[in-house]
Amino acid sequence: MKSTKAQVIEFCLPDLPDAGVRAEAFAPSNIALCKYWGKRDAELNLPVNGSLSISLGSLGTRTEITESDTGTDQVFLNGKAVVQDNPFARKVVAFISLFRRELDQPVCIKTENNIPTAAGLASSASGFAALMLALNDFYHLGLSHDRLSAFARMGSGSASRSIYQGFVEWHKGNRADGMDSFAEPINITWPGFRVGLLKVATGAKKIDSRSGMQRTVDTAALYEQWPKQAEQDLQTIKRALADQDFELLGQTAEHNALSMHATMIASWPPLLYWQPESVAAMQRVWELRSLGVPLYLTMDAGPNLKLLYLAEYEAQVRDAFPELLDIDIVVPFG
Amino acid sequence: MKSTKAQVIEFCLPDLPDAGVRAEAFAPSNIALCKYWGKRDAELNLPVNGSLSISLGSLGTRTEITESDTGTDQVFLNGKAVVQDNPFARKVVAFISLFRRELDQPVCIKTENNIPTAAGLASSASGFAALMLALNDFYHLGLSHDRLSAFARMGSGSASRSIYQGFVEWHKGNRADGMDSFAEPINITWPGFRVGLLKVATGAKKIDSRSGMQRTVDTAALYEQWPKQAEQDLQTIKRALADQDFELLGQTAEHNALSMHATMIASWPPLLYWQPESVAAMQRVWELRSLGVPLYLTMDAGPNLKLLYLAEYEAQVRDAFPELLDIDIVVPFG
Repeated sequence: MKSTKAQVIEFCLPDLPDAGVRAEAFAPSNIALCKYWGKRDAELNLPVNGSLSISLGSLGTRTEITESDTGTDQVFLNGKAVVQDNPFARKVVAFISLFRRELDQPVCIKTENNIPTAAGLASSASGFAALMLALNDFYHLGLSHDRLSAFARMGSGSASRSIYQGFVEWHKGNRADGMDSFAEPINITWPGFRVGLLKVATGAKKIDSRSGMQRTVDTAALYEQWPKQAEQDLQTIKRALADQDFELLGQTAEHNALSMHATMIASWPPLLYWQPESVAAMQRVWELRSLGVPLYLTMDAGPNLKLLYLAEYEAQVRDAFPELLDIDIVVPFG
Repeated sequence: MKSTKAQVIEFCLPDLPDAGVRAEAFAPSNIALCKYWGKRDAELNLPVNGSLSISLGSLGTRTEITESDTGTDQVFLNGKAVVQDNPFARKVVAFISLFRRELDQPVCIKTENNIPTAAGLASSASGFAALMLALNDFYHLGLSHDRLSAFARMGSGSASRSIYQGFVEWHKGNRADGMDSFAEPINITWPGFRVGLLKVATGAKKIDSRSGMQRTVDTAALYEQWPKQAEQDLQTIKRALADQDFELLGQTAEHNALSMHATMIASWPPLLYWQPESVAAMQRVWELRSLGVPLYLTMDAGPNLKLLYLAEYEAQVRDAFPELLDIDIVVPFG
């Protein structure tokens, strides 16, 4: 039987939360090397396949929760008040209410994304992870990391991974309530590993990831093989990380990302997140690779590229992509 | 047990051919609405799925065969002599020799493609179909249409369909020798049906279709569902033709083409025939469709688009795509 978020949380947290005064937390963005695409439960954001990401160090979201002094919930995004019926405000308040439950305490939420607009990154992963971390502190929930990750997942699937820095694996889990579907850090350091963000096009994407995933699952016959490929890619990427085999990692991550986009392209109506500039950038990556530079790309549900390379090729990569925004990744197990 | 082309032909044509004096034949290009992608037998060009195309009227290849007066085989392409070790000349002569067998008669082959370079169309389908039709006449083979189609297929898979004008179905067949894998015309007229060719990029494609197919079959996990989808698309397109349901036809043809490209994109190394201009043109098609014009696209193993629409929307389509080259399709069952 399917559970709602509220049912799962009530089961896991039978006691009502303590009213809080102030809490603050930060969570990083993350980029998946093995993608999350498709849900086995849309209410709980339970994935059909496990995934693996790298967190983006100091790029992410900082969230502060305080008591509201206006008698009503208040939401601020990047310093500006957001009206109550704005979709962002509604999502944030609905998520808080899952934990606040019958506690009659209006709160003030201040969210700051330090992700440069030029990065072309979504902020829902770091946003829900930071919010969950702040809620845990604010309401004195005392949750384990596994629970924090599983609950963040209920806000946005990939938020489960943004609880951690470094390389992170999100276990798909098998339980109906999803409490075995959480992320864990992978105990690996790789100081020479580089991620660069290549923004090639602007403009809001037309189809959000949630709807895109659903359309793919519903209409793309080719999607049927995706879960199997993704599970194999996940194992290969873990082996490549353990062996620090960059070419195997890059190949598998790029193949995985393009296969995910292939399932979208095979959907109806077609779901193409690429812009002409995306294809031009992909071809530049392949051109540079054909010249001997081990450079790989990954892409999410948008037109921008993320480049994977090693520090020793930094100069060649920057020369070919002067507009590249590179990320100072924190690998915490150094 | 697998057969070679020579074995199949010897079995089907036990008698040696008569030496000829002169023969000439024309065959049209064709554009698949349900694509041929993947072989169950690479030697005989036996497909994993049935396919369906529309032939392009007077756009195609005219081939003349005469006795050679130089004592050696001669090949001319578009009025120019082609040296013997040129890949085109070698393919043509090898194909002729399958039928000439031990007959010691050098021939002169003159091939003229009237496909405008601007159309961005391959000429192997019409080329091998015209050559097969001319060989049948030249050597007095007296072959049935089914046999002509099956033998043309051994030169180039899609040549099986170029034996006919109008809408044509290529049956995948099941026999090991492939003699049940031939095309047949579909007895349907549709005077308002339009095909437009949109050349968006120049330059020879880097990976030929034969190699691209093989790479897809070998490396794309998502390809596993392609044969099943293609068979379903084929049935849907036949139903749409019978009902003259243009939207169903267009949707299925576009979905089929994009799914084929999806299998390529999910290959390793990635196989992307699209150029930035292809994506820009695809978006223009979708934009026009969102404005209510029933316009659909299909694409083959190259960067160019083929547009499908009805005569009543000609003005809107030409307005949006002034560079469109439209095709005067011959539907022979008028």
